[in-house]
Amino acid sequence: MRPPVHLAIACLLSSTAVQAQQPVPFRAPIDAYRRAHEAEILREFRDLLAIPNLASDSIAIRRNAAAIVAMLERRGVTTRLLESPGGGPPAVYGELRTAGATRTIVLYAHYDGQPVEPARWATPPWEPTLRDGPLERGGNVVPLPSAAGTTGPEWRIYARSASDDKAPIVAMLVALDALRAAGRAPSVNLKFYFDGEEEAGNAHTSALLRQHAALLASDGWIFADGPVHQSRRPQVVFGVRGVTDVVITAYGATRALHSGHYGNWAPNPAAVLANFIASLRDVDGRILVPGYMDDVRPLTAADRRALRTVPNVDAALCRELGLAATEANNAMLAERIMQPALNVRSLHAGPLGAAANAIPTEATASIDFRLVPDQRPERIRRLIEAYATRQGYTVLHAAPDSAMRATHGRLLRFDWGAEGYPGQRTRADMPLARAVVRAVTDALGAPVIEVPILGGSLPTYLFAEALAAPLVVVPIANHDNNQHASNENLRLQNLWDAIVVFAGIESMKGATVP
Amino acid sequence: MRPPVHLAIACLLSSTAVQAQQPVPFRAPIDAYRRAHEAEILREFRDLLAIPNLASDSIAIRRNAAAIVAMLERRGVTTRLLESPGGGPPAVYGELRTAGATRTIVLYAHYDGQPVEPARWATPPWEPTLRDGPLERGGNVVPLPSAAGTTGPEWRIYARSASDDKAPIVAMLVALDALRAAGRAPSVNLKFYFDGEEEAGNAHTSALLRQHAALLASDGWIFADGPVHQSRRPQVVFGVRGVTDVVITAYGATRALHSGHYGNWAPNPAAVLANFIASLRDVDGRILVPGYMDDVRPLTAADRRALRTVPNVDAALCRELGLAATEANNAMLAERIMQPALNVRSLHAGPLGAAANAIPTEATASIDFRLVPDQRPERIRRLIEAYATRQGYTVLHAAPDSAMRATHGRLLRFDWGAEGYPGQRTRADMPLARAVVRAVTDALGAPVIEVPILGGSLPTYLFAEALAAPLVVVPIANHDNNQHASNENLRLQNLWDAIVVFAGIESMKGATVP
Repeated sequence: MRPPVHLAIACLLSSTAVQAQQPVPFRAPIDAYRRAHEAEILREFRDLLAIPNLASDSIAIRRNAAAIVAMLERRGVTTRLLESPGGGPPAVYGELRTAGATRTIVLYAHYDGQPVEPARWATPPWEPTLRDGPLERGGNVVPLPSAAGTTGPEWRIYARSASDDKAPIVAMLVALDALRAAGRAPSVNLKFYFDGEEEAGNAHTSALLRQHAALLASDGWIFADGPVHQSRRPQVVFGVRGVTDVVITAYGATRALHSGHYGNWAPNPAAVLANFIASLRDVDGRILVPGYMDDVRPLTAADRRALRTVPNVDAALCRELGLAATEANNAMLAERIMQPALNVRSLHAGPLGAAANAIPTEATASIDFRLVPDQRPERIRRLIEAYATRQGYTVLHAAPDSAMRATHGRLLRFDWGAEGYPGQRTRADMPLARAVVRAVTDALGAPVIEVPILGGSLPTYLFAEALAAPLVVVPIANHDNNQHASNENLRLQNLWDAIVVFAGIESMKGATVP
Repeated sequence: MRPPVHLAIACLLSSTAVQAQQPVPFRAPIDAYRRAHEAEILREFRDLLAIPNLASDSIAIRRNAAAIVAMLERRGVTTRLLESPGGGPPAVYGELRTAGATRTIVLYAHYDGQPVEPARWATPPWEPTLRDGPLERGGNVVPLPSAAGTTGPEWRIYARSASDDKAPIVAMLVALDALRAAGRAPSVNLKFYFDGEEEAGNAHTSALLRQHAALLASDGWIFADGPVHQSRRPQVVFGVRGVTDVVITAYGATRALHSGHYGNWAPNPAAVLANFIASLRDVDGRILVPGYMDDVRPLTAADRRALRTVPNVDAALCRELGLAATEANNAMLAERIMQPALNVRSLHAGPLGAAANAIPTEATASIDFRLVPDQRPERIRRLIEAYATRQGYTVLHAAPDSAMRATHGRLLRFDWGAEGYPGQRTRADMPLARAVVRAVTDALGAPVIEVPILGGSLPTYLFAEALAAPLVVVPIANHDNNQHASNENLRLQNLWDAIVVFAGIESMKGATVP
């Protein structure tokens, strides 16, 4: 079996990976508290993971909200369910005032999860299961511990949302317990915002935020979502790529035609679609649409400094993924994801398997456009459609009727996804960014990677725009957590580190926040 | 509902369409015989259609051969099964000497059929079903007639191989019966060659023909396969496009990668494949591979004269097919199929339906190349692969192993179909060509369309090359017969006309054959 990336690249890294075995001044009492309470921490986590959490399951999603309210109230946090005027799952809101604090931080996580295909799971997605190692390396099921200090750091808990994104909720609250046990207190006013429809597209969130803007006023948001770096080192992320997506359909004749009798005469929608895609991007990922890059915000010197903290894991990743080369002449992953990407996610035309000698009636491609600041989904959509029009295509937004077919050639239909995110980025030199980097570094006693932008997309722009607050992402999950897939899991050491990280953030120097 | 092409274009045609209701001297007794025996003709046809006929089903295919042997022997034809030295289905051979005849004609049809997807059929493919009209215009199932003259000309029989290609076998033999009943006799020595692996690629046919070349000696072959013209007028065809096909696979990473976290870095095989296809041909069907057209044989004056007999049905076809425009600026179908075509038959990458945010691991396209004389499949294959190599792709003929992946980028795999046909064309001014045109015209009492080349591919070159004999194609099926697809059918009037056509050919003037 191929060694995982984090082992393969250990030799590439000059700095030391986080090890719980090397206590540092800040984390020692936090770790000690956690070690003494592992059994009860894991029970609380298991109970939360056991509640099915599809945003569309309105009964179950509110059971999650109620459970989180109870978890907050056990810690003396004032709670409230925030409803959106348009419906949808509630956000769980909590508030913990700190005497004398002048700054307020909002801690964000989401409690809803991706849909599941139970047949693909080794154990049921909502029956949290502890294993003494990763499933794919033979990890065995073990019971939840009943005594302190009996787990291993490589143990994993398997359940939907174990990593994405219920773990931060538990970590944030256990961090409060640990701080108190250590005789410390938060240094800032804390607000909690636990989102109930992140995986469902946040259709109701913007209205909810505007409705409750006064309540949610703060000096900055800490978004806890996503994985740590592939090297297992902690990272602080200042932005995310946005996204918009589309299904493009090219139309040919209304019935499949014999490729011999009609080939070279009847339009071939599969060839049309291939040509249109090739007009959008080349094999190296270069986007060929004129004007596409106009809104790309240049990196600042601080962004570039941050980028230099990101370890180069490309060679190890290539080995793991069976790639001799990557796009753009092997340019570095961390740099490439700071640029827009055009991803062809699927292509479909004609039958799978044995070839029919037929020209297909239509061809479809699913494409996503990953955006960076200040690209806006609406502009990208207009740009792509205008580009198609200039190439002689007839742009449609529904299947063509017979009148349309009779009068227009080269029909190309664009079904844009309902939601899109613009890219979002907080300047790496913003006071909030510096304060969070320092808090996490000090808490863990190890340098953190500063990532100017994450390749994936989170709805952070909704919060940044609705509330005009700076926003930093602090991911805590292991990178191999099977996010969105079957056998999602959280490595226990990542949970233990997360408790330390949030203890650091909750007690970070108030003065450093603007 | 849209009127079918043959009605829509009636006004475009200067000559009269074939109508059974207008008996002419030759066809009157043939039609009379057929009308009196419709019930038994259809029973014999039904019994043949009821035998499953996939070439790879060696038991069933030999049941077909045995049934055809019995049909021939009922008519006093000497029969033999011809086996290929390399195995495969037998060809059914028959011989009927005509006293005093000095010329010999071989009549060809094939008795194997395309694979079926029973779930897509309205009635099971090997349960021949008569309907009183086309399925898509509400034709109802009717029982086989038990009395003479009770069917309608627009009735259709639905079964695999009803049109492709068992109907000619029945028509050729009933034509013999009808000639005899009319007191006429064949004018030439007749040989019958019924092919058992046409739809499976004729892998064993060349060896079979060379093995039995002496037995198969003749003055010319009449190939009965394919549909009549879309106008429903009869056509005689002097050539066919050849074909070679390939499945091309582009490879990305060994596992699907999140399109956000890795998009713009990891190679996207779907985009690579689209770019490669776009480098092969444009949206107008123009083939962009340098040197591709070098071997295209120019048309002769006779070919051009023949081409002028082909009615222009393009406008009506476009209406039927929901097309406002066709490739190459609406150039005429009959002219376009005289040129090579590159058809994308399928595209597949990533999941169908709901989009995963993932870069697929591979992408495949199935493509066929329709060739014209004197293009050879081997040269086309070399040309395409060399073109890929020049573009920087690594050309493979099997899935890449990890060593290949680790050392080579841009992997493109070519799985060429086992068999390919070169294009084949008999000169329109050859004596055989003129004799067949005259015989069919005289038999039907209506002018025939002379088609220099058929868009589809038949293995005629195997026969033309192995036996050095001229070869003319006489198709008899309705154009809307759903050949190769579900609900394949034959229109009864096409069967009735076919009996007249073969009676004309079987009794054509021996002296006109060279």
